[in-house]
Amino acid sequence: MAVISLLTDFGVQDEFVGVMHGVILRIAPSARIVDLCHAVPPGDCRRAAYLLAWAARYFPPRTIHVVVVDPGVGTKRRILCAEADGQRFVAPDNGVLTLVLQAAKQPVLYDVRESRYWLRPVSATFHGRDIMAPVAAHLARGVRPRALGARTTTWIRLALPRRGAVIDIDRFGNLITNLGGAPRGSATVRVKGRAIRGLVPTFGLVRRGALAAMLGSRGLIEIAVREGSAAKTLKAKVGDPVVLTAG
Amino acid sequence: MAVISLLTDFGVQDEFVGVMHGVILRIAPSARIVDLCHAVPPGDCRRAAYLLAWAARYFPPRTIHVVVVDPGVGTKRRILCAEADGQRFVAPDNGVLTLVLQAAKQPVLYDVRESRYWLRPVSATFHGRDIMAPVAAHLARGVRPRALGARTTTWIRLALPRRGAVIDIDRFGNLITNLGGAPRGSATVRVKGRAIRGLVPTFGLVRRGALAAMLGSRGLIEIAVREGSAAKTLKAKVGDPVVLTAG
Amino acid sequence: MAVISLLTDFGVQDEFVGVMHGVILRIAPSARIVDLCHAVPPGDCRRAAYLLAWAARYFPPRTIHVVVVDPGVGTKRRILCAEADGQRFVAPDNGVLTLVLQAAKQPVLYDVRESRYWLRPVSATFHGRDIMAPVAAHLARGVRPRALGARTTTWIRLALPRRGAVIDIDRFGNLITNLGGAPRGSATVRVKGRAIRGLVPTFGLVRRGALAAMLGSRGLIEIAVREGSAAKTLKAKVGDPVVLTAG
Repeated sequence: MAVISLLTDFGVQDEFVGVMHGVILRIAPSARIVDLCHAVPPGDCRRAAYLLAWAARYFPPRTIHVVVVDPGVGTKRRILCAEADGQRFVAPDNGVLTLVLQAAKQPVLYDVRESRYWLRPVSATFHGRDIMAPVAAHLARGVRPRALGARTTTWIRLALPRRGAVIDIDRFGNLITNLGGAPRGSATVRVKGRAIRGLVPTFGLVRRGALAAMLGSRGLIEIAVREGSAAKTLKAKVGDPVVLTAG
Repeated sequence: MAVISLLTDFGVQDEFVGVMHGVILRIAPSARIVDLCHAVPPGDCRRAAYLLAWAARYFPPRTIHVVVVDPGVGTKRRILCAEADGQRFVAPDNGVLTLVLQAAKQPVLYDVRESRYWLRPVSATFHGRDIMAPVAAHLARGVRPRALGARTTTWIRLALPRRGAVIDIDRFGNLITNLGGAPRGSATVRVKGRAIRGLVPTFGLVRRGALAAMLGSRGLIEIAVREGSAAKTLKAKVGDPVVLTAG
Repeated sequence: MAVISLLTDFGVQDEFVGVMHGVILRIAPSARIVDLCHAVPPGDCRRAAYLLAWAARYFPPRTIHVVVVDPGVGTKRRILCAEADGQRFVAPDNGVLTLVLQAAKQPVLYDVRESRYWLRPVSATFHGRDIMAPVAAHLARGVRPRALGARTTTWIRLALPRRGAVIDIDRFGNLITNLGGAPRGSATVRVKGRAIRGLVPTFGLVRRGALAAMLGSRGLIEIAVREGSAAKTLKAKVGDPVVLTAG
């Protein structure tokens, strides 16, 4: 009973997500399908890459993660199948795998070209339905990744910020940074002209409306306002620089 | 392990969808439930009819599609069970089945009246929970459609546009028309005073911000703006006329 | 094949919900997971308490309902496991169980402290992922509630309105009150300076745009506008007083 996760920019307004479920169940009736997230902004490969990296490690071994954030659909861009750290991925080669592949020990990649596992005909605009969902379903049924196409060692890397920055803003208005942890109480986080001294264990411990920095659930420093929105309070956006200093 | 799909106008704000899952699993613990779409605008039977037609064909044979877009709930409107092209449907008789029944060879319909398969008591405002979900669950367990009520041959048809028109606008702002394909490169699509010459294979091949027409994933001509919204660019809405001419 | 329902304030923008699915399936591969609702406003324990009470009774016996509306996460607040009226609950002790526990005959509660069933390490801000999802998955696999921690008889009750009031507004703009039914046709409902005489069986029976009161699907009096929004028409909000009188 293999697990297939779906990460897309389809939203929930249309029939796209439901159709992918249908295609998968038609081929692999006992696959377990998880809607990882469908709210990636249209074509935002960077956000898809982060969400995938933050989520994949919590899934059962050999889960097949399908990523359909695919602004180049129908062009020459490749579709990849990857095995990395015990998980499997089916995604366009546009950078959405950057973080999971960079973190993995010896990932193995395949260039998905074997059309025997695809729907017919293949549309030019919905490879999620016509290629990626059926390929994932065949993997769930036991087809080996190497049957999907030739091994490849190249893949497109997103240029991610090297310096400290806000890399995401979540539903609660928390700012997610790309900075890992620091010793509690001995650090200062600077963002948007504000200096936040000390990391608190959790936002529940600060007073209502106060700005605080903490090590978030993804292992990254987050900036939050208790019962408020740090993004609104600071007028912050993805890409804003963040500096972490000792003391 | 029968598949049940749910198509509603419930949104995701309330407990309505979760409750239907609960009702189904209580009766048919091994049914597979797919959320086809819950974002149909309240009472919009036309949009439900299109989404259902575009999605149903991709589901496993004998899937039970439940449609709860039901502005007449609690009035004399009937509830239908239909078998059409190998799929099954449970829906109010308000036009939501128009496209699937028009396309089907010899659909068979039943007037759902046998209350033995319903919850008790039946509320006057939530037949999705009290009638349609339990009926679908009983079908999933093997109850025959004819056990649900008498055969019927009448059903309500929506008046759909006969001339070329925008019939839907998707999450990406693409305009979906009711026009089928034309030979590539030899057609002109006119909408909102603009003439778009030639169909491209995919929007990934046009330049950013350009307006393009193509045969979309539903087999219908769509109008798109690469990395933009055709709906916003053209100030288009559902119902706007579209003309396709050769050359 | 135990059922686990998830009720959170996570929205669908981030990876939080998908991650909880992954954690559960890793521990209990055959658990059935239902997304009850993820649109509870951030930290709104009152709304979570109502949605849970309205939904839980429709789920299969022994369903495990996980509630992650948890503004006190990481502080000293407890996590409870409750058995009540044949259903099971895993939730922070912040009032979200108020209605299900008040309605239950002899509920049994446990203080969830046994870390052997948790993920390691436990973050300070995402106990849904690190404690509640794995605990629910272990329950689904047959772990007894008493293995999770010591019995307790105390739990936090929300202060809910004692007089007639609007307690919720649904997707359709209907006002949900905390008033049970009254004899049909012999009652007057007063809200926002308007007197609505008589309860109708369903909004489908009133004329378009008319204001009506009826016994809704939750067994509570609702105020609706046919094909409109009672909330907008009356400029009503949660907490507005409602008076029901005979005649």
